[in-house]
Amino acid sequence: MKAIIISIGNELLIGQVINTNAAWLGEKLTEAGISVISHQSIGDEKEAITAGLTAAFERAELVITTGGLGPTRDDITKVAIAAYFGKKMVFHQLTWDRIQEAFSKRNIPVSELHHMQCFMPEGFEILENDLGTAPGLKYVDGGKTIIILPGVPYEMKHIVESHILTALYTNAALDGFFQHTFHTAGTGETVIADKIRDFEDGLPEGYSIAYLPSIAQVRIRLTKKGKGSIDFEMYKLELKSLLEPWLFGENGSTLEEVIGDLLRDKKLKMVTAESCTGGAIAARIVQLPGASEFFEGGFVSYSNGQKTRMLDVVPDTLNKFGAVSSETIREMILGAVKKSGADVAVAVSGIAGPDGGTTDKPVGTIWIGVGNGSKQVIHKYYYQKDRQRNIEFTTNMALIMLRKFLIAHDLS
Amino acid sequence: MKAIIISIGNELLIGQVINTNAAWLGEKLTEAGISVISHQSIGDEKEAITAGLTAAFERAELVITTGGLGPTRDDITKVAIAAYFGKKMVFHQLTWDRIQEAFSKRNIPVSELHHMQCFMPEGFEILENDLGTAPGLKYVDGGKTIIILPGVPYEMKHIVESHILTALYTNAALDGFFQHTFHTAGTGETVIADKIRDFEDGLPEGYSIAYLPSIAQVRIRLTKKGKGSIDFEMYKLELKSLLEPWLFGENGSTLEEVIGDLLRDKKLKMVTAESCTGGAIAARIVQLPGASEFFEGGFVSYSNGQKTRMLDVVPDTLNKFGAVSSETIREMILGAVKKSGADVAVAVSGIAGPDGGTTDKPVGTIWIGVGNGSKQVIHKYYYQKDRQRNIEFTTNMALIMLRKFLIAHDLS
Repeated sequence: MKAIIISIGNELLIGQVINTNAAWLGEKLTEAGISVISHQSIGDEKEAITAGLTAAFERAELVITTGGLGPTRDDITKVAIAAYFGKKMVFHQLTWDRIQEAFSKRNIPVSELHHMQCFMPEGFEILENDLGTAPGLKYVDGGKTIIILPGVPYEMKHIVESHILTALYTNAALDGFFQHTFHTAGTGETVIADKIRDFEDGLPEGYSIAYLPSIAQVRIRLTKKGKGSIDFEMYKLELKSLLEPWLFGENGSTLEEVIGDLLRDKKLKMVTAESCTGGAIAARIVQLPGASEFFEGGFVSYSNGQKTRMLDVVPDTLNKFGAVSSETIREMILGAVKKSGADVAVAVSGIAGPDGGTTDKPVGTIWIGVGNGSKQVIHKYYYQKDRQRNIEFTTNMALIMLRKFLIAHDLS
Repeated sequence: MKAIIISIGNELLIGQVINTNAAWLGEKLTEAGISVISHQSIGDEKEAITAGLTAAFERAELVITTGGLGPTRDDITKVAIAAYFGKKMVFHQLTWDRIQEAFSKRNIPVSELHHMQCFMPEGFEILENDLGTAPGLKYVDGGKTIIILPGVPYEMKHIVESHILTALYTNAALDGFFQHTFHTAGTGETVIADKIRDFEDGLPEGYSIAYLPSIAQVRIRLTKKGKGSIDFEMYKLELKSLLEPWLFGENGSTLEEVIGDLLRDKKLKMVTAESCTGGAIAARIVQLPGASEFFEGGFVSYSNGQKTRMLDVVPDTLNKFGAVSSETIREMILGAVKKSGADVAVAVSGIAGPDGGTTDKPVGTIWIGVGNGSKQVIHKYYYQKDRQRNIEFTTNMALIMLRKFLIAHDLS
């Protein structure tokens, strides 16, 4: 099955909003064995929507739209799509009841515009939206399937996750499509390719492997096209054991989730001591709901003075070895653990650039350490990209080292 | 002039990469008076590229492509576009010289693939790329203009900024198109619309105003279609004075840049004391190159225990008023200034959710304060979105309050 994603909204065209919806949908559809052949962003104009649909259904059987379902006058997605399928708009009482109930709970008056929003193309299936006023819609007309979703990312994802994905994955398995993704960190694509070359060469017809690299991580995706899941499970386990040295998660788990689980299991609390990342490591951890169960806090000791004030780094160490050194990192770990009382600390210090590099320590020189009062593991890295990516690399590598340390050492 | 942006790469279709290029280009083209009517992402396939170009030039005079210029076999953008325009590929010695020179400086051997990368469509203008191996390309054929750019965002932006934008803005002014954007923070779209209603109603034919809201900020864009810049300058100044209470920048400046400039001018150093944002405020400041000139560091006092250990918040204050309270914020400010020796502190504590809310303090309750040892300004906010947006709102509001404080108070 081929799919095209159409994102509707002038705010996308003028660059006011970055289209994250298309990427998310592209990933989910790919995982369900659907081939996404194009993403398109178009304006809130009836002619543009009709032209987009017509062209899309010439090349794809599934079209997913996002955006233009709001209560304002420029939200005309539903009307345009109804016209395309020759349907009239009918009032949907259940949606109106839901909006009234949600608004009365929050003591907000409903407006005429919200009443207008309850008109839907006749015969379309309603995909309920618990997080907003605009439900999704689905319609199948012969070989054409359309799914209509709101543009607000968390509402869109919620509707897809609760009404669409299970059916897609079940269909994929029935049609003979299986996929599993392994998340690795701490090595490059080439090393992994070398390690799994024999496995890859020995895969039977219908199997394929994709490498999906990002900063300091590589995802490895095993795909089978063909019926029967037993052999797929077998190859999955074999690949998993080959990837073991670098594996940290499967099918969407993040490094911070894995670290959170490890710390919770071991009943440990962590602390951060950051220089060049300026708080980005702590902020990544705190993106996780419930981080307070294992995250005590962090020190952003950006200036040399603060390394001493916040973390008791000895001024002589800074003078002799510099802020970007193994010695400073060791004292940052010791200081962070002592000052916070946490069980394990991760510390980073590097030259993010664009300025501040020297011949000995060029931009992109990064020291990262993990440890506690008795044991520290410290490594040096060269990344040497632009400031933003140097910070992102350092953040990812610090989390990777923390995970390894937690697995290797019993700190309880 | 109408434009279509075509982004080329399978990694976009499967959602491995979010397409930030299209948004950035959409914004720049809009600012130059060019109407962007569609963004499209397509795969690395010759047929898809040819079909995309054909359809795009039926509706637009300008097509900009990004991606598919790399040295690997699946990068076939140039070949496909050359074929579309009936051009052959010719070797471009200057690009080859540049690649060899850049690689020899870094002691990296050049490969056959990089040699292949130097073939360009005959007659196309080369747009030099100082940051990578793939230059951009430009070609005008009657009413059709194509600009071909690499997919790596910072290379793409660099080429556009050094070779394209000045010409676009000059042409825009000559053609009678002027635009200026004011950045405001700390109030909503509706309040601003009320304040400038008379101004807006009094604007002559050809003028328009657009509201571009984002989290805790609204950008106001004044546009004139029609020749002559003198009246435009006049209306620009009038609008600026009306927006003064909330204005923090113009034409692309960020809150953190404005704060950096203020702190540098006043020779002040800042420190952060964060709870619910978990380091996100410090990380925003550190995104700025040269942040060390005015940023000392920060405390991420996530647990109550750390608020006491790191910042000397009195346990009684936490017990009596809670961590999310004006009293705790005041002590966080005082502690951060005292412990760091910085001149001004910004402190935040809130309930980011999804858990942790109570009847008195529901999810989205946020306290923010700015100050030093002698003066503190503290406000409460309710935002009540999901965790990620609550954190982003808090980060933005904290920076907004810091800017106001720095302007209102002489701390030297």
